[in-house]
Amino acid sequence: MSEIVTAGILVIGDEILSGRTKDKNIGFIAEYLTNIGIDLKEVRVVSDDEPEIVAALNALRGRYDYVFTTGGIGPTHDDITADAVAKAFGVNIDHHPEVVARFKERFGADLNEARLRMARIPDGADLIQSATILAPGFKIENVIVMAGVPSIMQAMMDIVSPKLKSGVRMLSDTVRADAREGDIGGPLRDIAKAHPDAIIGSYPFLDDAQKPNVNLVVRSRDQDKLNAAMADVKQMLVALHAPK
Amino acid sequence: MSEIVTAGILVIGDEILSGRTKDKNIGFIAEYLTNIGIDLKEVRVVSDDEPEIVAALNALRGRYDYVFTTGGIGPTHDDITADAVAKAFGVNIDHHPEVVARFKERFGADLNEARLRMARIPDGADLIQSATILAPGFKIENVIVMAGVPSIMQAMMDIVSPKLKSGVRMLSDTVRADAREGDIGGPLRDIAKAHPDAIIGSYPFLDDAQKPNVNLVVRSRDQDKLNAAMADVKQMLVALHAPK
Repeated sequence: MSEIVTAGILVIGDEILSGRTKDKNIGFIAEYLTNIGIDLKEVRVVSDDEPEIVAALNALRGRYDYVFTTGGIGPTHDDITADAVAKAFGVNIDHHPEVVARFKERFGADLNEARLRMARIPDGADLIQSATILAPGFKIENVIVMAGVPSIMQAMMDIVSPKLKSGVRMLSDTVRADAREGDIGGPLRDIAKAHPDAIIGSYPFLDDAQKPNVNLVVRSRDQDKLNAAMADVKQMLVALHAPK
Repeated sequence: MSEIVTAGILVIGDEILSGRTKDKNIGFIAEYLTNIGIDLKEVRVVSDDEPEIVAALNALRGRYDYVFTTGGIGPTHDDITADAVAKAFGVNIDHHPEVVARFKERFGADLNEARLRMARIPDGADLIQSATILAPGFKIENVIVMAGVPSIMQAMMDIVSPKLKSGVRMLSDTVRADAREGDIGGPLRDIAKAHPDAIIGSYPFLDDAQKPNVNLVVRSRDQDKLNAAMADVKQMLVALHAPK
């Protein structure tokens, strides 16, 4: 049986919504999850506002096997993710003794209230940390809370991913159509209908000459079914490009 | 009175969720809206699945003044946005006579069923089109439906934005702290408390030397209040960097 494992992403941060910071985490996590056999089903971006975070987190964690959050776990007043997660789960949050001990060793006299804020971890959460990660992330039930800085988030993904269950990986193959999307829409629809176990996507783009072109992507969890659908797609393209 | 105008973004597309395509539209629209005085409050990304699109669209259009969608308005079987929008509004959808007429002129004998799909517009929608836009976008009530290809989406934003109401623009000023976030978290919190009409954000990043640094961003709709908060932030940084 090919179990399907699903996920959502919750990006937390005013700076993304204002456009000041361009998110790089969604694309990274999306690709990462695809590669380990987890289907990303939904993404939400919300502001640094506790009720918004709680509502979005509760919606996503109820629907999907995992939820990955990014942002809001630093030492400043606008870092409210850990508290919002505790509230969403209805658990207490306090300074985690292990993190406090590490911070004491690391910061010495520089350990102030702001830095201690990064040691606030909801009860029952497992830490996501390493020697190079300053403020730890954490996993509580099916929710994985990570940093917003891409390099740190990426290190956290590497730490947490071996602990996740994963399903049968979605396989994918791509062919560039060298055709206009409108010329292939009809035959492509017929091929999609004939291959219900493959997902056929058509992704238009402007090529280097600013000419409309299309990438055709066939996805399936079954290599044979993927191959069969892709064979039909390629045959369709050969017929299209054949001299009339 | 300073009216606040809000917006949500709904990105539609399996290719974003699979990580195959890295979204460039969220950041563009976010920055665009900030510049014209519209507050982006939430973003969602959903798959090419009608019930998912309908549910997300209805959630967002009820909450915000405007909703901007990207993706899914092309000629292939996986382009289902227009139909999903019609369903969300409970209106009919059919080939729009004006678009069909343009397509006939433009495509001649190449006008096939796939291309006609791009002429399907929900009843009551206003077209978003120009001489260089092939498949039109449209605006129905407070929902603006746009292409997923960034260059086309951007052209559509330019067409539709003059028709939108906008509020008092959120102003913003940034200073690079040249400090570790943990060293400024305490004083920054006090400044934030003392300036309730300014939003103070702290955005850590690794600088070129891979050293932790922070951008401090002060935002307000009132220039004087922004200036007052920023003055306190800068004074705090001067004190921090002063020789001890």
